[in-house]
Parts: sequence; structure tokens; C-alpha cells
Amino acid sequence: MSIELIEHHYPKGRVVVREVGLRDGLQMAQVFPTTEQKKRWISLEYSAGVRHFEAGSFLPVSRFPQFADVGEIVRHIQSLPGATAIALVVNECGISEAFAAGVDELTLVLSATEEHNQANTRRSREASLEAIGHAVKQRDQTSRQTLLNVIISMSFGCSIAGTVDSDEVLRLARECLKLGVDTVGIADTVGYAGPTQVKALCQQMAALMGERPYTVHLHNTRGTGLANAAAALEAGARIFDASLAGLGGCPFAPGATGNVVIEDLLFMFETMGISTGVDIARLVEVRRVISETMPDQPLHGGVAQAGLPKNFRPQV
Amino acid sequence: MSIELIEHHYPKGRVVVREVGLRDGLQMAQVFPTTEQKKRWISLEYSAGVRHFEAGSFLPVSRFPQFADVGEIVRHIQSLPGATAIALVVNECGISEAFAAGVDELTLVLSATEEHNQANTRRSREASLEAIGHAVKQRDQTSRQTLLNVIISMSFGCSIAGTVDSDEVLRLARECLKLGVDTVGIADTVGYAGPTQVKALCQQMAALMGERPYTVHLHNTRGTGLANAAAALEAGARIFDASLAGLGGCPFAPGATGNVVIEDLLFMFETMGISTGVDIARLVEVRRVISETMPDQPLHGGVAQAGLPKNFRPQV
Repeated sequence: MSIELIEHHYPKGRVVVREVGLRDGLQMAQVFPTTEQKKRWISLEYSAGVRHFEAGSFLPVSRFPQFADVGEIVRHIQSLPGATAIALVVNECGISEAFAAGVDELTLVLSATEEHNQANTRRSREASLEAIGHAVKQRDQTSRQTLLNVIISMSFGCSIAGTVDSDEVLRLARECLKLGVDTVGIADTVGYAGPTQVKALCQQMAALMGERPYTVHLHNTRGTGLANAAAALEAGARIFDASLAGLGGCPFAPGATGNVVIEDLLFMFETMGISTGVDIARLVEVRRVISETMPDQPLHGGVAQAGLPKNFRPQV
Repeated sequence: MSIELIEHHYPKGRVVVREVGLRDGLQMAQVFPTTEQKKRWISLEYSAGVRHFEAGSFLPVSRFPQFADVGEIVRHIQSLPGATAIALVVNECGISEAFAAGVDELTLVLSATEEHNQANTRRSREASLEAIGHAVKQRDQTSRQTLLNVIISMSFGCSIAGTVDSDEVLRLARECLKLGVDTVGIADTVGYAGPTQVKALCQQMAALMGERPYTVHLHNTRGTGLANAAAALEAGARIFDASLAGLGGCPFAPGATGNVVIEDLLFMFETMGISTGVDIARLVEVRRVISETMPDQPLHGGVAQAGLPKNFRPQV
């Protein structure tokens, strides 16, 4: 069942780039779009060809008002034919709310290091694994088909603990699969990785995951985001997270850039022979929604500044 | 003789990253550092470990006042033990001046397309090849050992002519070698390339060049600079151009970023197991020279914003 469910959202042989700006990009934002503006952002990106959206997080509204409308955003995404609505959860309460909202895919968070898991979610990795097991049980008790995707933060190094051994990442990934989740992904949460390390871990992930695809969530904090994505692609990864204009930051490096710029990533993939199905010129236009609704937000990315090359032809 | 000369400046087995900000970074600048400020910039980068500097261009001073002091900058670089002073020339007049100034290495410019060669240097590629032959003769007539390095602009696509066939780049490279230059490099002048294309052309260049290393001059115009550099490195390239804070632009795309950011490139290479010999934290400090002398200049780069990773250890 699990493989069919994965392939329903991530068809075999397709490279998928997911828009995570509405979640990761807004996580630290003080000023953020209204619900209607978020819907416009999503609809415009959908028109450009994007199909996978992280709608937000199920977190306490008092601390994260930017995600108060996550349920409505999920419904909006699901009103668009063929779109997948993803939402992030960190604990049992969020998990129940996400199931109630009928989210297509849950991003379940676990850190590669005990130190970051505590700092990020105020609980041990053991407790996070328990919550993940709880999500599996809840999923199995309902008829609803919700994809469960654990993303392992700090998979390439931790801003608190330092170096992270890839064996530890793989051990945690195995634990999660044993608990019954559908897939596991790896995140370079603080942009520590270089392409050699990314390629190596992706190859190990591929060996572990077999026919299941795995998510690669990269940040561009030190300029290596696209280089790392190219390395992951070469190693066979095919689900990538990115955000419009690179929206998002890093709580551990004020002023630093965050997510990989989705426009640039799609451009690079097209040059590498990958048909992304996205109209990049049209996608670039959607940046206006961010500049209008978050005027102080720096917009990153080269394609938006320079335009597509004169000889550019999207893959078919 | 030629190989020994190349290996004197580019020792076998070493990856070299060259600072081209004083040339490519200032090419379109209206405001630029004074001679003393340029010397400070170079000395500080030298202290951080950089050894190869493009000092400027030998061009008419009336149109390019930023390069009026190129001779003095060359002498300053040569006063630093083990440093290599490079200068760009486009015609016979500049070639003679550069020889008279005792430059260590001449960057001779040739475009992959007739259209860009005309637009850039107001002469045909045939005439540029004649100038290159002229430089070889002048070099051979003196006892002075000057490295002659032709960089082929628009090797990955042209903002005027569109697509560029790699066979045409290789044909021009062969022509140049036949004329007697020491080495030939490839430039993604307008940032059109993706990593697959870069890797393929580098592999072809390696086959053509044999034991001679070749220069890879990449721009980050569409965010792919580091991804392309990683691909080139994997294909065996070992001479790379970059600039502090990514200084430089693109005359064909106003506001677009230019050169690859040297700090980020060195960081990435270190993560890939390459010992660059550069103290990156110290190099980041040198950005102050740019912000003090060119206050309106946008400074690019992730490492400078975010700092080096907690677990970062330079290769030895």
C-alpha cells in the first residue's frame, strides 16, 4: 500500500520540487501574508506548474500566528487538481490536528542530534520517535491515506553538536521505517553540507530506501544549495524542497539566506535534462506576491534578476 | 618549456582559485578603489593565502580609468613572494604594454561566437586570433617568461547568438594551442551553464589539453556558479576564477550578480576534500575593503553572512 501511496504523490521517474516557502519561509517571519494572499501565491505557482506545497505547520497559534490558517490553506491546495498539501508537525497535538484537517502528507520532524532535537522541539529524540509511532497508529486507524514523511534535521552537521555521523542519520532513518512511516528525508538545516557529503549520504539513503524516494531539504546558507542539489540529483534523489525567492532564514545565523531558491533550482534541473513541468518565467512573476506582502523581505535568486538564457528551452 | 612555466604558476595536483575582482569586478564600476586601496585589498588577500590575482586590464585609460594603475598593481603583486600577477588584454597595443609591464600571465580574450567577439572587442575572431599569434611572437622574442592563457568567452552559450556548440569552442581552443599559447580556458561569461554542460565541456577540454591545466571562469548570474564549479572540479579542472563578495556584474543583465563568490567557492572546495591553502575567515574580513571603497556595491556570498560551520576544519 505504502509504495502506491508514495507513487500517487511522487510518480515514478519524476523529479519533484516542493514549495516550502509557506512553511519554512514563514517560520520566523514577523510580517506574513494574509490567508487570501497565501491562496493567491499558491494558485499562481500552481498555474506555473508547481504541484507540491507545504501549507504550514500545526503549531500553537499563540506562538505561530502565521500558521493559524494552515487548515484553510490545506483545503485551498486540495481544491487544485493534482496538487499535494503537506504540513509539518512536531508533536501528538499537531498530528491529530493535521489528520483532522485531512492533510495529504505529514512532515514529521526528527533531529539527527539529541542537542538540536531538544532545542527545536523541547523533547528527546526518543520522544519524537514515539510521536512518529503515534502518527503511524493514527494513520492506520483511519481509512484516509495520509503519507508520513520524516525529515531528519541536521543530517549533514549540527550548529549545536557540530559534526554528524552519517551512520547516526541512517540508524534514525531505519528506526522510522521500522515504525511504519512511508518515507524518510534528509535536511541540511543550517547549510553545512558540500556536494561530496550530500552525494555520499544520498547514495546511502538510496541503498536503505530501495524503491521509495526520499526527500532532500537543502539550505543555501553558505552558497552551496544548488551544488548540493546537483550532487543529490546525480545520486538519484528526486524529491527536493525549495522556496520562492529563497524565502526563509536560519535561526542560528541572523541575516543569512535560507532555502534553496526554487526558480534557480528548477532552471538548473532543466539544464540537466530534467523536465520539471514548471514554467519558470511565470514562476518568477509570483515573487511579486512576496514583495507586496512582505516588503522588508530580501528576495534571493539569479534567474529573477537576469532572466532565462536566450537559448533556454524547457525539457519536454 | 611551456609545461614547466605552467607548473611554476600552477603546481601539479593543486587546485588554484584566482582573485579576478580587481579586473572583472571593476570592469563596469563607476566608483572604484584607489591604487593604495587596491594594494591593501591584494595584500590582505595574500595574507589569507590567495596567490593568483588578475591585476586589471591593459585598455585605453580614457575609457577605463579604473585600470590606469594596472602596471603599478602588477608590480605590487610581484612584490609578494610566490604571487602571480595576471592581466587581461584584447589587442596588440595592450599586449605590448603588458609585456613592458612584465606581467606574469596574460589573459587573452577570444569569444566562442563571432557576434560576441565583435560586440566585445570590435573585431572579428580571426583578428583576435591574429593578435593572439602576435602575443606568442612577442613572448618568444623576449627572454621573459610570460604565460599566455586564452579565455574563450561565451563557451556555454551567448547572450547575442544563443546556443554555442562545444565543438566550436574546442576548435578555437585547438587553434590557439596551434598558435603557441600555453593554455586555454573556458568562460561562462553570462552564467548560462548548468553542471551537466560544464562537466561535459571540461571532460572534452581535459582530453584536448592533456597534461596542461585549463582555466574555468564561471559566473553566478543564475545561481549555478558553485554547482558548475563542483562539476568542473569533478571533471578534473583545477584553475578557477572567482571574486571577493562576488564583485562584478554582467553588462547584458543589469543588476545581476557576476563572478562566483571566492569565499563560498573556497568553502565548498574545502568540504570536497581540497586543500586550498586559504584562511577563509581571514579572507571574509577583506570584504571590508570593498564596502569601504565601493559603498554602493552589493556584497554577495553566504559564508560571510553565516560564518563557517561549527565543525569546519580546513583540509591540510
